[in-house]
Amino acid sequence: MTPHNEMKTKIDTSRNQYGSLTDIEGLLLGQREVGEKLPITGVTAVLAPEGAAAGFECRGGAPATHETDLLRCGNLVERVQGVVLTGGSSFGLISACGVQQYLAEQHLGWRVGTSPEEVVPIVPAAAIFDLGRSNSFTTRPTFQLGYETAAAAGRGYVGEGSRGAGSGAEVGGLLGPGLVGGIGTGCVKTEDGISVAAIVVVNSAGLPIDIETGELLGNAHLNSVFCRAELVTKIAAPTQKEISHWQAYVAAETNRGKHQGTPGNTNTVIGIIATNVDLRRDELTRMAKVAHNGLARSISPIHTLFDGDTLFSLSTAQLNLGNDLHAPLTAERALALSRVYECGATAVTRAVVRAVATAHSKGGLPCYRDFFPSLYDN
Amino acid sequence: MTPHNEMKTKIDTSRNQYGSLTDIEGLLLGQREVGEKLPITGVTAVLAPEGAAAGFECRGGAPATHETDLLRCGNLVERVQGVVLTGGSSFGLISACGVQQYLAEQHLGWRVGTSPEEVVPIVPAAAIFDLGRSNSFTTRPTFQLGYETAAAAGRGYVGEGSRGAGSGAEVGGLLGPGLVGGIGTGCVKTEDGISVAAIVVVNSAGLPIDIETGELLGNAHLNSVFCRAELVTKIAAPTQKEISHWQAYVAAETNRGKHQGTPGNTNTVIGIIATNVDLRRDELTRMAKVAHNGLARSISPIHTLFDGDTLFSLSTAQLNLGNDLHAPLTAERALALSRVYECGATAVTRAVVRAVATAHSKGGLPCYRDFFPSLYDN
Repeated sequence: MTPHNEMKTKIDTSRNQYGSLTDIEGLLLGQREVGEKLPITGVTAVLAPEGAAAGFECRGGAPATHETDLLRCGNLVERVQGVVLTGGSSFGLISACGVQQYLAEQHLGWRVGTSPEEVVPIVPAAAIFDLGRSNSFTTRPTFQLGYETAAAAGRGYVGEGSRGAGSGAEVGGLLGPGLVGGIGTGCVKTEDGISVAAIVVVNSAGLPIDIETGELLGNAHLNSVFCRAELVTKIAAPTQKEISHWQAYVAAETNRGKHQGTPGNTNTVIGIIATNVDLRRDELTRMAKVAHNGLARSISPIHTLFDGDTLFSLSTAQLNLGNDLHAPLTAERALALSRVYECGATAVTRAVVRAVATAHSKGGLPCYRDFFPSLYDN
Repeated sequence: MTPHNEMKTKIDTSRNQYGSLTDIEGLLLGQREVGEKLPITGVTAVLAPEGAAAGFECRGGAPATHETDLLRCGNLVERVQGVVLTGGSSFGLISACGVQQYLAEQHLGWRVGTSPEEVVPIVPAAAIFDLGRSNSFTTRPTFQLGYETAAAAGRGYVGEGSRGAGSGAEVGGLLGPGLVGGIGTGCVKTEDGISVAAIVVVNSAGLPIDIETGELLGNAHLNSVFCRAELVTKIAAPTQKEISHWQAYVAAETNRGKHQGTPGNTNTVIGIIATNVDLRRDELTRMAKVAHNGLARSISPIHTLFDGDTLFSLSTAQLNLGNDLHAPLTAERALALSRVYECGATAVTRAVVRAVATAHSKGGLPCYRDFFPSLYDN
């Protein structure tokens, strides 16, 4: 591996440029949208038909969540069959019930009896606030949409930008210069077989863009030396003309305060990180905590009172780090775990960058691409 | 006030003998059941049309909860418009979405726009595991049942026993001697105007009954000297013949292990405590923590890995304790708060006692009354 500092790249919106959540074996992903012409809101569901150990960390001040208490350390049920990211604020959490229904029909869940149908699928969920986007307050993900999202889940290409739960996402409302947000995905793979992937819905009160340079804040953090993972190329710098255009927009919007005044109504970043490494509940909890650092590096401000920022963590447990999970924690395992966690933070950063970079303008709101077309190669 | 030790009373199932949740002004309560002949499961909804400050504490190892993260200290939204207790395990949490829909139609909720309909009703919820009771695994509370429960909410008499979320409740499965559980309510009122009420669904892995004496464990804790509240009369002791009958049942069931083997499938205690005292989020959080002591006193064991024990706390804020809520905590206020919290624990104990005492046998499972008919006066 060599540093790629001199090989900065362009944004490719036609593929999962930084990898995707379905690079983790054992996970399926489905996405569905609501909106006749343009997606207004939607659902993203990750299914783990064989079950996946899970944890979470909620760090925002205005969360909308479902079935999270069971994920705390020391509790009985350690595995989930799915995780749902949804639009529609707390109204949209009903889509998780639809996903649960689909899984129940497949007889997948926590087994509570001897008959195949006696299962309770465990499906934690979190929602972003996107109500009122496109002037429709009552257009929200439904039970049926959740069911259809689960039924459509598969592997392969993962749509980014205004797809699934990212359909109604916007960013930057707290500061003034609002832009279209979205959903993005990324994966970090190390030379010794560790994979950590992320999918993140970026609907933050804060901005994921440097207001001076126009660069995506996460661009500086796409790689981590500590991860010893494959390096990805950073995005090239905008032209001076593009930067001037961006700075003018920031100044105008900040003065106009167009998006100010209702920051509490329009935010929240939610996501999922998943790894092939065999991790316990307490380790997954810490992995989710560290993954929030990926948000901190790529969005500013983050974790405000107006965001409900929540990350879920999953382990499909194909790869054992070489230690007994029930033995006392050794320095060696602690170091190995720290690498896995940092991979998660980096995967989150990659996902945030992709979410913003792949967005398209809609409803009069510009997108990153509008300001920086020179950064794109398709 | 005088001690009532010499004036032990009988159980009156025709009224809310120990007060009820709707003794707290500003709260409405609705209950609905599922089951053609006998209630198998159901929903209990408490509505706070004017909003109520809220907190919670989950202390069981297998919780099924909805919209609880927002209730943590330091978060943005401090008031809820409703709390839902439901059967159906996590499947039943969808009933909270029905309650939310009803409240949204009333334009009650967290305001997120200028139009009356632009509200997000905040409706946290918790579920008990009652799936498979009466041999029906798929009979569960629905969105529609939640909606109807909210629409029917009012004040006045609160049904106890097999009503609402208590419809499918059973107790004691972990130990062997299973009995019908249920829902109960109680209220503690002090001489200086403090009211703290509770409503609790008792579906515990543990037993709320002394296996030797047959007395309800909570009977010894119906009053608290510290509360300086009105005293309620304790329930009289069973006859020796009744005690012998009970002991024989305990021995037979424990030996038979009839209910053993699936403790993880059949448990959880959930409830709500509400007060007229003006309390902050952090204070309500502590109130919910202390209220769990009411469960500890009345059920044994409690908070097992097979229970999802969760209590919500509400303040309707009609009564100020005479301190500025934003001033540093004084010893005086700390003492006053401690009394309020203890009232909550006692109200929970009263509710647990009522839940078990008012239950009726069904589906071949006996109830407390079957063993101790001499304790009843109607």
